[in-house]
Amino acid sequence: MTDETQSEFARATAVTPRGDARFSADLDGSWKVGGAVNGGYLLGVIGRAMAQTVPATPDPLVISAYYLGPSDSGPAEAAVRTIRTGRSSATLGADLSQEGQPRITALATFGSLGALPDDVGTSAQPPELPDPDDCIPMAEGPQEFLDSAPVVFRYDMRLDPATAGFAAGRPSGRGLLQGWIRLADGADPDPLALLAFLDAFPPVMFDLGRFNWAPTMELTAHVRANPAPGWIGVKVQTRNIAGGMFEEDCELWDSAGRLVAQSRQLARQPRA
Amino acid sequence: MTDETQSEFARATAVTPRGDARFSADLDGSWKVGGAVNGGYLLGVIGRAMAQTVPATPDPLVISAYYLGPSDSGPAEAAVRTIRTGRSSATLGADLSQEGQPRITALATFGSLGALPDDVGTSAQPPELPDPDDCIPMAEGPQEFLDSAPVVFRYDMRLDPATAGFAAGRPSGRGLLQGWIRLADGADPDPLALLAFLDAFPPVMFDLGRFNWAPTMELTAHVRANPAPGWIGVKVQTRNIAGGMFEEDCELWDSAGRLVAQSRQLARQPRA
Repeated sequence: MTDETQSEFARATAVTPRGDARFSADLDGSWKVGGAVNGGYLLGVIGRAMAQTVPATPDPLVISAYYLGPSDSGPAEAAVRTIRTGRSSATLGADLSQEGQPRITALATFGSLGALPDDVGTSAQPPELPDPDDCIPMAEGPQEFLDSAPVVFRYDMRLDPATAGFAAGRPSGRGLLQGWIRLADGADPDPLALLAFLDAFPPVMFDLGRFNWAPTMELTAHVRANPAPGWIGVKVQTRNIAGGMFEEDCELWDSAGRLVAQSRQLARQPRA
Repeated sequence: MTDETQSEFARATAVTPRGDARFSADLDGSWKVGGAVNGGYLLGVIGRAMAQTVPATPDPLVISAYYLGPSDSGPAEAAVRTIRTGRSSATLGADLSQEGQPRITALATFGSLGALPDDVGTSAQPPELPDPDDCIPMAEGPQEFLDSAPVVFRYDMRLDPATAGFAAGRPSGRGLLQGWIRLADGADPDPLALLAFLDAFPPVMFDLGRFNWAPTMELTAHVRANPAPGWIGVKVQTRNIAGGMFEEDCELWDSAGRLVAQSRQLARQPRA
């Protein structure tokens, strides 16, 4: 499946059909963070297996992934089942496993973003961000952080200085991170890359001075439009920390000023 | 399963185990809206089948339901599968079907809300609401609305006058509805009732002057704490209307001022 004309992301998330709605994948260790393969990258892999199962409706409109345990680099298998096929959408289930152990179970409805009606009545406002050149490249973060998160180098991520205090030991306490993201090789975003972008930024808890990696229990993403080429603006926020868990909301805005994807995840907050 | 000491909600959402992780239910037509059984009520039914499958971890922490088609009153079957059981939580899948046709497919992680650590660091603020007695009972709405939504009478729902303009033909255009909810029989809320509350208010699009019933494609709910007895404050909001779909976010606040549940759904907006 290696095709040098594809983006690095497309190659790293490629899946090979094995018949009977099963796909093999090779999870790429360069997308790891905190010792496990990044959850957004995994969403790209499982999303790609689903997309190839329903080629007439290849775009994720909504996907919910439940993370059952950490994934490691190496071989993995995605098993997809088609639950319902309608005129313009299909609902699917999928399980990603390694060595016979389930790592992710997911449900999703796929459709065709390009075929949706073009009404927009959005009241949400994009984050106010300095130009990418005036933001702080994540790849220039503390060495300890970079060592634990090689996935940082798979993206070009830039933090708004106004929300980057945590990196200098001065988290704002607001529970807010924002900035820019694009793929490291400069490839333009597509709907599956948006899934990965939704879980690429550092945990929002960093802005509250809690620097543990926070395992995702569940993440649901809505993809609302095909993204325009170029940078994607990112806003990550948490408002409800309780019972050892927190929600993390992420919005992605494209270069045309459109809210192209949003997600909410429920994550565990390890005790500090 | 009928037990007159139970709340009306508990009786209406009761499920009977049939062995092999299957449960039968009798969907109650008095919980209908727009010709189909209300999605929040259905979440209560499917949630109860899951809860009974893992009695050691009986509370929904997070549940994602994909609505495949309208459900009617009458017999239904819930088939539950246990995907992973951990020390303090279990991840399950479930399908609700009628006459062999799937109506809902869901994933969920269950746990024990009472056993969670008691840290709270929530920055979200509860909605500012007049007392329930100073709000507008939904049951006094226009007859045409009530005729299409018998489910209204299963709750005591009170609309904040500040967001009730739609009922008098003057929607605010903000995409915001808020008020109070409790079960019609006065029973105190429990975690499964919270699931129903999350999809009980009128569609938030009413506040934008779009009065079609809006079919839910997907709804994910986080239940974060056991609710205190009494009224539950409700805030429903939409910010991203595009491509014939909109997201609807709902927050539920208990009488102790705690954010006990929140949900986001993706719904279709029928053309006006």
